[in-house]
Amino acid sequence: MGQAGCKGLYQSLFDYKTEKYVIAKNKKVGLLYRLLQVSILTYLVVWVFLVKKCYQDTDTSLQSSIITKVKGVTFTNTSELGERLWDVADYVIPPQGENVFFVITNLVVTPNQRQETCAESASVPDALCYEDSDCPPGEPVAAGNGVRTGRCLREGSAQKGTCEIFAWCPVETRSRPTKPLLGEAKDFTVYIKNFIRFPKFNFSKTNVLDTTDRTFLKSCKFSPENPYCPIFRLGSVVSWTGSNFQEIAVQGGVIGIQIEWDCDLDKAPSECYPRYYFNRLDNRFSGNSISSGYNFRFAKYYRDAAGVEFRTLFKAYGIRFDVMVNGKAGKFNIIPTIINVGSGVALMGVGSFFCDLVLIYFIKKSHFYRDKKYEEVRSGHQGNGKVNVEQLQSLQTVEA
Amino acid sequence: MGQAGCKGLYQSLFDYKTEKYVIAKNKKVGLLYRLLQVSILTYLVVWVFLVKKCYQDTDTSLQSSIITKVKGVTFTNTSELGERLWDVADYVIPPQGENVFFVITNLVVTPNQRQETCAESASVPDALCYEDSDCPPGEPVAAGNGVRTGRCLREGSAQKGTCEIFAWCPVETRSRPTKPLLGEAKDFTVYIKNFIRFPKFNFSKTNVLDTTDRTFLKSCKFSPENPYCPIFRLGSVVSWTGSNFQEIAVQGGVIGIQIEWDCDLDKAPSECYPRYYFNRLDNRFSGNSISSGYNFRFAKYYRDAAGVEFRTLFKAYGIRFDVMVNGKAGKFNIIPTIINVGSGVALMGVGSFFCDLVLIYFIKKSHFYRDKKYEEVRSGHQGNGKVNVEQLQSLQTVEA
Amino acid sequence: MGQAGCKGLYQSLFDYKTEKYVIAKNKKVGLLYRLLQVSILTYLVVWVFLVKKCYQDTDTSLQSSIITKVKGVTFTNTSELGERLWDVADYVIPPQGENVFFVITNLVVTPNQRQETCAESASVPDALCYEDSDCPPGEPVAAGNGVRTGRCLREGSAQKGTCEIFAWCPVETRSRPTKPLLGEAKDFTVYIKNFIRFPKFNFSKTNVLDTTDRTFLKSCKFSPENPYCPIFRLGSVVSWTGSNFQEIAVQGGVIGIQIEWDCDLDKAPSECYPRYYFNRLDNRFSGNSISSGYNFRFAKYYRDAAGVEFRTLFKAYGIRFDVMVNGKAGKFNIIPTIINVGSGVALMGVGSFFCDLVLIYFIKKSHFYRDKKYEEVRSGHQGNGKVNVEQLQSLQTVEA
Repeated sequence: MGQAGCKGLYQSLFDYKTEKYVIAKNKKVGLLYRLLQVSILTYLVVWVFLVKKCYQDTDTSLQSSIITKVKGVTFTNTSELGERLWDVADYVIPPQGENVFFVITNLVVTPNQRQETCAESASVPDALCYEDSDCPPGEPVAAGNGVRTGRCLREGSAQKGTCEIFAWCPVETRSRPTKPLLGEAKDFTVYIKNFIRFPKFNFSKTNVLDTTDRTFLKSCKFSPENPYCPIFRLGSVVSWTGSNFQEIAVQGGVIGIQIEWDCDLDKAPSECYPRYYFNRLDNRFSGNSISSGYNFRFAKYYRDAAGVEFRTLFKAYGIRFDVMVNGKAGKFNIIPTIINVGSGVALMGVGSFFCDLVLIYFIKKSHFYRDKKYEEVRSGHQGNGKVNVEQLQSLQTVEA
Repeated sequence: MGQAGCKGLYQSLFDYKTEKYVIAKNKKVGLLYRLLQVSILTYLVVWVFLVKKCYQDTDTSLQSSIITKVKGVTFTNTSELGERLWDVADYVIPPQGENVFFVITNLVVTPNQRQETCAESASVPDALCYEDSDCPPGEPVAAGNGVRTGRCLREGSAQKGTCEIFAWCPVETRSRPTKPLLGEAKDFTVYIKNFIRFPKFNFSKTNVLDTTDRTFLKSCKFSPENPYCPIFRLGSVVSWTGSNFQEIAVQGGVIGIQIEWDCDLDKAPSECYPRYYFNRLDNRFSGNSISSGYNFRFAKYYRDAAGVEFRTLFKAYGIRFDVMVNGKAGKFNIIPTIINVGSGVALMGVGSFFCDLVLIYFIKKSHFYRDKKYEEVRSGHQGNGKVNVEQLQSLQTVEA
Repeated sequence: MGQAGCKGLYQSLFDYKTEKYVIAKNKKVGLLYRLLQVSILTYLVVWVFLVKKCYQDTDTSLQSSIITKVKGVTFTNTSELGERLWDVADYVIPPQGENVFFVITNLVVTPNQRQETCAESASVPDALCYEDSDCPPGEPVAAGNGVRTGRCLREGSAQKGTCEIFAWCPVETRSRPTKPLLGEAKDFTVYIKNFIRFPKFNFSKTNVLDTTDRTFLKSCKFSPENPYCPIFRLGSVVSWTGSNFQEIAVQGGVIGIQIEWDCDLDKAPSECYPRYYFNRLDNRFSGNSISSGYNFRFAKYYRDAAGVEFRTLFKAYGIRFDVMVNGKAGKFNIIPTIINVGSGVALMGVGSFFCDLVLIYFIKKSHFYRDKKYEEVRSGHQGNGKVNVEQLQSLQTVEA
């Protein structure tokens, strides 16, 4: 007793101070507390440790590279193009085999366009005219194909016509075929090679089965039962998204192929394998004609013998595939383990907090327990009080 | 009393143990503690729950697809190209309408290049020569256009000339026009269709107003007042970044269009709408000529009647648009709510810790409170001490 | 005493309640507790604050733009192509200078293909035939170049031949050159301009030295000693990944160039500089012929004088460079600082929890300390008990 002050502080450096607890022999609150403890413990063990694997250090900064290669040929015979065979160099844009690639399934072709004057398409509202003054020269047609020359072209004795324009002539007038030109594209295959690396753990893997069987990749097809063969039939991919191939082939669309790596590196490397998810990524439910489907225009440029440039304009409808990779890897690490055990213990405090509320406010004998839990001290008449307190302490600790 | 040991432990399984508190009737420390409590509670409620919405489970792994479509035509009349109309297939690279697209605004054209020999451009320092020995045959010109043939070409009686090279001849010699060729590109529009999906909540949305009015998208323009019309005038986009269109059109640049989705799925789906941000992404403040602007070279390849290849080289200046999407969605979930309430309670412990320090070290009567807070026990003369302690405990608990 | 109830509660609003501690004068447990405290404090200061910089608010949503520009020319002289000079417009795909670009290093050229009939390549297994019935007309050859016409073409008196197909003829038959056509590509350079912005802190930076010296970027080369000159020699980049340039040039490959920004904005802006990492991203260790290397096919389309289309098919092998940027920035902020101090204090509770276990279960005198730590109260005979308890409290607090 009385060794307070600096000296006492120094002496008591290796004293262990532990909270004093009051044992409340109240079965109800006790049971409540045990229940809360068991709930928190269960949450900790099941959710934090088993499901979320919070004892692991994780790496989500995946390095990934995608190489895609489409295979397949198809033959078409149309009045505009004649007999034509389509191979990969013809229908895949861009050709590089990156993670985003487009397969043409439908085409509007406008061949032999040259820079000259012609009538604007009648389907452009802004091009309609009754007389030449409706076509101010030099002004572009809004949402049209060229700039007005100042003349209004009317066929025969028609009242209404369209402005003459300077443009790539003749302008595109055909509408979208209702039957896809390359409907056979459903049998094309795409080989998706994905190489990933988790830099934190220096762990690399590929989505291709590491086999010495040279014929495996030549003959296999991806299916949920065969996840190590990343060769996909386009028609199957479309059907896995819940879409109809012929419908998407006519008006185009965007399909997302998601590759997900969720690797527990505490297990064997073979347990780390990719999962594939297929989604339709353009809004096929929209009623807007302008916002459904996917198409774009591109041109091939030529020069005739006189050196004059002409081009063939293509309006291509088709399927764009976006291959997206994400993943995370986890490996046991002592620091997150300690942190999570720690916050679990801290969470126990919430249980105590809640049970304390019940004990000292909500049960019948709460008054009694409140008095026991809170020991009131007041230092009003300090001199006098001090002595008495110390007397009591002597009594309590005896050896003083 | 004395039921310690295994039997006692078992009996006390449902006893509730609660920390014993000492009530310090010190108004100053009490006030300090209440202030800290109120601060922490305010922080919890305002910051953690209202601002950060930590009661929600969040999904940041957004699935997004972007389709872009540029519209507009412009007419140019230059000495090199003559009268020419430019449409989308001419000036947008690449044509696919992905999230990154480039609009040509300025051009240096070098037509009819063929594989042959010609003089290197005089603007390449490494190509200057006085005699043939300055041009070692077979060696490429550093930062030049071809490999030296071994001859030094001097015009007339000039002392200095440039090496003859084997290259695509004639080499590009023109410099950048100071007035943009396609300055009218400021009136082009781009339609950006963005479809997003939060896989965790299976929530999809698009940035286009879901309307049945077919003319809405044909006539509207994006503005802060009209955020559901994702049709942007290029000139407006450039001005929103704080740049001057004519300046960026001359030397090129990169503009970022950011679409941000911050969705609270506890509210109505219509509350989840995109916000657009526009930024200049190339460093326009740099004084380096080499590091300002944006341009690249590409070529169109032709064959003449004899089957010999020739090409037209384009050095294209223009604006690259990078459309970037990010977002997150949140929805109420009981687990993060409990976790955050829990860590809030734990944070209260920091308040207690701080007030304890004040109470037992920094106030006048700290000595008194220290003795009350810390009850010293020592087990020196255990037998004797034990009895007396238990006597005291009997006295305290009475019913013993 | 006895001011319990509502009135007492109100009066005691500014009473400070502090946990009552029992001082256990046990050197072993005390030492253990101090050790745990020091460990946790060290962990907090060193790991949480110095290494992880948890006192900072961080921004990981980097805005980044990449502009790449390849330079270099090379001369080849082969039997198929004759003398040819290759410049950037010839060998870089796509030409736009985005973050992913491909440099051709090897080529299989099949010139003058036309839509007609010819024999399928003998290297396609599905095309082998003995008689015409092996070639059902209209059926595409699996993994081949066209659709069967129904005839089996046998040379001379050979038993075995290949089906005649309608395709782009002649079909590609040459195999990959074993010596890279553009082996000199190792001396090409690529200039990578990276502009980043941390929107939360409105901090922008570029990876190019902000110098007024116009010749710096014309002459410098990147090296670990010269990190502000982002001009990379392709051969060096390949060697930094641990690969052999000639090997990758023959069969192609993918190389990742990672730019990492880890910026402490509490320091000077010049301390925020990029770090470059180079990795081989295709799986060069695989034994599968089909899964090694990187190549793709593309075509250039021409029209002859009669307007008939023909093309030159290229099978391009080369190096794809993926430039990836990631980064984070941190700046001091009071809220994460408080949060982390708080969870540090909470972690101390884990130390107490552990030491309590030792104190009351595992040491010799645990029985004694258990009785001191836990004060048993029971409210069996409440009326009687209450009085006595209050008597005791009077004794303890004296001033009552």
